[in-house]
Amino acid sequence: MHALFLNGSLKPSSEDSNTDALIRKVINYYEDMGITSEVIRLADYTIAPGVEVDMGNGDQWPEIFEKVKNADIVILGTPIWMGEKSSITKQAIERLDGGSSLTNELGQAIYYNKVGGVVVTGNEDGAKNAASSMIYALSHIGFTIPPNVDTYWVGEAGPGPSYMEAMQKGESEFTDQHVKFLAYNTAHFARMLKSSPIPPEGNVME
Amino acid sequence: MHALFLNGSLKPSSEDSNTDALIRKVINYYEDMGITSEVIRLADYTIAPGVEVDMGNGDQWPEIFEKVKNADIVILGTPIWMGEKSSITKQAIERLDGGSSLTNELGQAIYYNKVGGVVVTGNEDGAKNAASSMIYALSHIGFTIPPNVDTYWVGEAGPGPSYMEAMQKGESEFTDQHVKFLAYNTAHFARMLKSSPIPPEGNVME
Amino acid sequence: MHALFLNGSLKPSSEDSNTDALIRKVINYYEDMGITSEVIRLADYTIAPGVEVDMGNGDQWPEIFEKVKNADIVILGTPIWMGEKSSITKQAIERLDGGSSLTNELGQAIYYNKVGGVVVTGNEDGAKNAASSMIYALSHIGFTIPPNVDTYWVGEAGPGPSYMEAMQKGESEFTDQHVKFLAYNTAHFARMLKSSPIPPEGNVME
Amino acid sequence: MHALFLNGSLKPSSEDSNTDALIRKVINYYEDMGITSEVIRLADYTIAPGVEVDMGNGDQWPEIFEKVKNADIVILGTPIWMGEKSSITKQAIERLDGGSSLTNELGQAIYYNKVGGVVVTGNEDGAKNAASSMIYALSHIGFTIPPNVDTYWVGEAGPGPSYMEAMQKGESEFTDQHVKFLAYNTAHFARMLKSSPIPPEGNVME
Repeated sequence: MHALFLNGSLKPSSEDSNTDALIRKVINYYEDMGITSEVIRLADYTIAPGVEVDMGNGDQWPEIFEKVKNADIVILGTPIWMGEKSSITKQAIERLDGGSSLTNELGQAIYYNKVGGVVVTGNEDGAKNAASSMIYALSHIGFTIPPNVDTYWVGEAGPGPSYMEAMQKGESEFTDQHVKFLAYNTAHFARMLKSSPIPPEGNVME
Repeated sequence: MHALFLNGSLKPSSEDSNTDALIRKVINYYEDMGITSEVIRLADYTIAPGVEVDMGNGDQWPEIFEKVKNADIVILGTPIWMGEKSSITKQAIERLDGGSSLTNELGQAIYYNKVGGVVVTGNEDGAKNAASSMIYALSHIGFTIPPNVDTYWVGEAGPGPSYMEAMQKGESEFTDQHVKFLAYNTAHFARMLKSSPIPPEGNVME
Repeated sequence: MHALFLNGSLKPSSEDSNTDALIRKVINYYEDMGITSEVIRLADYTIAPGVEVDMGNGDQWPEIFEKVKNADIVILGTPIWMGEKSSITKQAIERLDGGSSLTNELGQAIYYNKVGGVVVTGNEDGAKNAASSMIYALSHIGFTIPPNVDTYWVGEAGPGPSYMEAMQKGESEFTDQHVKFLAYNTAHFARMLKSSPIPPEGNVME
Repeated sequence: MHALFLNGSLKPSSEDSNTDALIRKVINYYEDMGITSEVIRLADYTIAPGVEVDMGNGDQWPEIFEKVKNADIVILGTPIWMGEKSSITKQAIERLDGGSSLTNELGQAIYYNKVGGVVVTGNEDGAKNAASSMIYALSHIGFTIPPNVDTYWVGEAGPGPSYMEAMQKGESEFTDQHVKFLAYNTAHFARMLKSSPIPPEGNVME
C-alpha cells in the first residue's frame, strides 16, 4: 500500500510549508499501518499549463502522473489563498483531469480503486471551500472518497499565525482528530478496494 | 438495499420537477438491481429552520431523518438557482449536519456505511458548483462517495428549456451515461459496505 | 438614505443572532452618517419557496421586497453552516432573483443604483465562500458592489465560540476595520448613485 | 480611459482562445467609446508562484502589474476547467492579492477607483462559479464592481463545441447582451470614478 501526497504550496521544498507539516501527521499514521508515503512538492517541478497527459517541452507532469498511477491513496494538500486552494493545486487538478479519459485494463477510468483525500492549511478562512472543490474533482474523475477525509486547520479571521506557528502554542485537537479520521479511513478503503476492486459493471468508459 | 432520494425542488410534488425526472432514471436502474427507492419531495414537508435533530413545533424533519437512517443510499437531488443548489437542498444539508454528532452502535458517525450521490438539473450553468457542495457535505458528515456519482444536466448559457423539455428533442447521452455510473457505483458500494462495514478504527467520535 | 439588512440567521428575532451583533456595528456608522437602517430577521417571516415576486398563499416575501425596493443600500447578513451561507439567505437570493426581470422607469433592472454588501459570522471557516456567493448574486442582478464590502468574523478551525462570545475576550480589529470599510464605502456609493444614477445606456433590459 | 484584459487561458497567444474571442466583443464596444484596450495572454509570461509583488528570478508579473496599475478597467478572462476558473487565472488573483497592501497617495488600497469585471467561456458548466470567485476577489482587494459585469458562454452538459465553434452556428443573444452590459457599465463606472474618486474616508489602510 502506497500513499502519494501532492502538496500545492506556492513555495518549493527549500522552504517550510505549513501544509507539509500537517501532511507529516498523516504520514505518521500511515507508517504505523505499514503504508509507504511520498510527498511531492509541486512547486519543485516545471509543470506545463494544459490538459494533456504530457504537454511536452520539458513538462514534468508525466513523472508525477506515473507516481499517481502507482499510488493506492492520493492526498491533495493545499494552502489557502483568497479563501481558495492554490493555483498550483488547481493546476494539478487540471492535469489529473487530463488523464481522466485513460482507462485501466477493465475499461474503467484509471483512477478507479484509488482513494482520495485532502489536507488544507491557512492562516484564516477558506478550508471547506478548498476541500469541497478538491474532493469533488477527485470524485468526479474516479477516485473513491471515504468519510471524513477533509483535514484542515485555519486560524481566526484576519492576519494571524499559520499552522506551524500556531501549533507552538498547543496542538489543535480538532485538526488532529481529523488527521486520524483521514488516515484510518483512506487506509481502510484502499485496502478494501485492493482486495475487492470495483467490478466493471455500469462504469466502463465508452 | 434501499435508496432514499431527497429532492430539493422549490415546487411541491403536485408540480412536475425536472430533477425528479432525472431521479426516475436512476430508479430504473435500481429496480433492475433489486434496490428499492423512495423519493421525498422536500417542499411537501414543513421543515423548521435550525440545526437540531428535532426543532419541535410541528417540524417534519424527524420523519425524513428516520428515512435517512434506514437508507443504504442517500441521493440529494437539486435544481439550480443562481448557479447553486436550491435553498431547500441547503436546508436538508443543515438538518443532516444537525444529526452528524449522533453515532451508531460502534461510535462512528451515524452516516457511516451509507453511500451518497447527487443529481442536479438546471436550464443552464451551475451543476458542478451545486454537486461540489453537496458531495462535500455528504462526505464531511460520514457518507462514502463512490466514483462518478454526480449526475447532471444543464443547457446552454442563458434562458432555455429545462431538462424534461429539452429531452423531448433527444436524450443526453452524457447525462444518461452518468445516471448509469451513479446507479451502479452507489449500488456496488452500498452492497460492499453492508457486507463489510467500516471497522471502528480511528473513526470513533469522542 | 436608507439601508436594509436582511439577516438570514436560522433563528427568529426572539433569539440572539451573532450576525445581528455584527450588523449593529455597521448601523452605528450609518447613524453617524445620517443613514437610517432597518434589520429584517428573515426567520420571523413566512417566505414561500419559489422564484416569483409573490408566491401567494400567505407568502410574506412581498412585504420584504417592498422594503428592498425602497432601500438605497441592501446588506445581506448570514451565519455559516457547513462552510456556506444559510438556507434562509439562499432563499432570499432566490426571491431577489425572482424580481430581477422587473425594471425601473428607465428600463434597467430594478436593483440598479442600489448598493450591496455582506456581513458574515460563523464559529469557524466559510466566510469568504459565503461572501463570494452573496456578492456575486447581488452583482449579477443589478446591485453595485463598492470595494471592501465583505465584513466577517470566524474563529479557529473546529468547535469554538461564536462572534458575540468571542468578542467578550476582546474585539477583532480586523473585523472592525472591515465594518468601517463596508459602512463608508456603501454609504459613499449610495450617495453617488443617488446624485448621479447609472445612465440607461447599454444596460436596458429587453 | 484604458482597459486591461488578463486572459487566463492555458494556451499561449500562438493558439486561438475562446475566451479571447469573447474578450474581443467587449473591446469592440470600448473602441466605439474611445476606451483603449490591451489583452495580456498570461500563458505567454513566466509568472512565478508566490504572493509578493515581485518574486524575482525572472518573474514577469511586475510588468503585468505595472499595466494593472495604469488601467482604469481590469477584466479577468478565464476558460473553465473542472467547473472552475483556470489555474492561471487563480495565479493572477494570487499575484493581484500580493499587491493589495500597497496604497495610493491617499492611503487607500491601490485598486481603489479601478473597475473590475469578468469574461468566462467553457464548453459546459462552471461559468457562474468561476465568475463568482473572480468578482469576489476583485471586490475584496479594492476594485469596484458595477452591475452585470459577469459575461459568459457555456454549452450544454457534456462534451461539445467551445465558444468559437458554437458561434459559427449562430451567435448567443444572451451572451452578446451581457457583453454590452459589461462594456457600458464598466465604462460608466470608470469614468465616474475618474472624475469623482472615492474619498479617503473610512477606507484608508492602516
